Amino acid sequence: MLSNTQRTKIKKAPHKAVADPKMLHSIIDESLLAHVGITDAGESVVIPMLCWRVENQVYVHGARNSRLIKSLLAGGATCLTFTLFDGWVLARSAFSHSAHYRSAMVFGQFSEIENTDQKHQLLSHFLEQIAPGRSQVARPGNSKEMAATVLLEMSLDEASVKVSNKGVNDKEEDLASPIWAGVMPYRTIVGPLVTDPNLGVNLDIPDYSSAYSGRWGEER
Amino acid sequence: MLSNTQRTKIKKAPHKAVADPKMLHSIIDESLLAHVGITDAGESVVIPMLCWRVENQVYVHGARNSRLIKSLLAGGATCLTFTLFDGWVLARSAFSHSAHYRSAMVFGQFSEIENTDQKHQLLSHFLEQIAPGRSQVARPGNSKEMAATVLLEMSLDEASVKVSNKGVNDKEEDLASPIWAGVMPYRTIVGPLVTDPNLGVNLDIPDYSSAYSGRWGEER
Repeated sequence: MLSNTQRTKIKKAPHKAVADPKMLHSIIDESLLAHVGITDAGESVVIPMLCWRVENQVYVHGARNSRLIKSLLAGGATCLTFTLFDGWVLARSAFSHSAHYRSAMVFGQFSEIENTDQKHQLLSHFLEQIAPGRSQVARPGNSKEMAATVLLEMSLDEASVKVSNKGVNDKEEDLASPIWAGVMPYRTIVGPLVTDPNLGVNLDIPDYSSAYSGRWGEER
Repeated sequence: MLSNTQRTKIKKAPHKAVADPKMLHSIIDESLLAHVGITDAGESVVIPMLCWRVENQVYVHGARNSRLIKSLLAGGATCLTFTLFDGWVLARSAFSHSAHYRSAMVFGQFSEIENTDQKHQLLSHFLEQIAPGRSQVARPGNSKEMAATVLLEMSLDEASVKVSNKGVNDKEEDLASPIWAGVMPYRTIVGPLVTDPNLGVNLDIPDYSSAYSGRWGEER
């Protein structure tokens, strides 16, 4: 069960809250993109970052000289939000229009992973999530690259999930109206892969994108 | 040209900055989803909200009794971030892997639109963006619904855009390696529409989704 703290208690439309950590995990794994909130001179700044999960932790990485990474390293409280937009709900009344989505919010503080072996392992995990097998093929990070890369970890201990997927919810008085109603779904197609025009050798295009249809198909 | 203030100056990878407002507009129009940053007791909270644009303004709406809307109505500085994820860049080295994306950040303060005619017009504009023609078909908001809906406006005067779409950028030393490299694109498919199972009458499924392929096809 996900936590139920002051920050993660869903007050608006609580019937959309999902307490099963599996849903949290699947949203993060499918999205791989977090909107990270930091405060800069007391004001909120929201920055998109690649983000992946291993067990009950999420990870982001970036260049040691970036302002964002420095701010995250400073260790203040952070909010990560993941959103998958699944489509429009077209109701009989304008007011009842809405959206299908799956979203997750995670509250916590990042800490740096400094052990180089562990960094290699966690970055490889990310590569494998993007493209299964890729970490065996790509040239691994050298010591200079690893030193320039900051890897940050945050636990998923304080998180909430909201899922809207129930279709049209018109008011009783509108149900008999001769107005079409329904859902206009969004879905993401991954691939086909496009070879780098600078590839000097003739190599088969890898089958990375097939991993997505399977993974995503199961979860939707 | 987009503004170049302290907050919108892109310091990291400045070659990815795009100053043409058309790109800002197309990112917002295609996304229709903002990650909104607010500060709550000094800490950043990031909340996904539907968001649309008319000319040089963006709009969000919500229930008058929601905590988020109350916080936005209080009028503090806000950051809205829009991100379209366009795919993975699979480089020869692990370090040079990256992503294709289009993202925009907008800084400002929301103010409420209170005039009911203007609210109707702006909400209809949103419906038309979602599904062209829909505002002529759906039952319009009544006075109670309009009163319960808060409509908030923010200008796009302070915004920045970052676009990454240049493909693989490996280091010189890796270019000759016999490793496949390229791009794994993401694209969004809208539709086919699914009729509400509670539709009592037999109505043709509208052709709303065709507007997307045209609009999105042109911009990519």
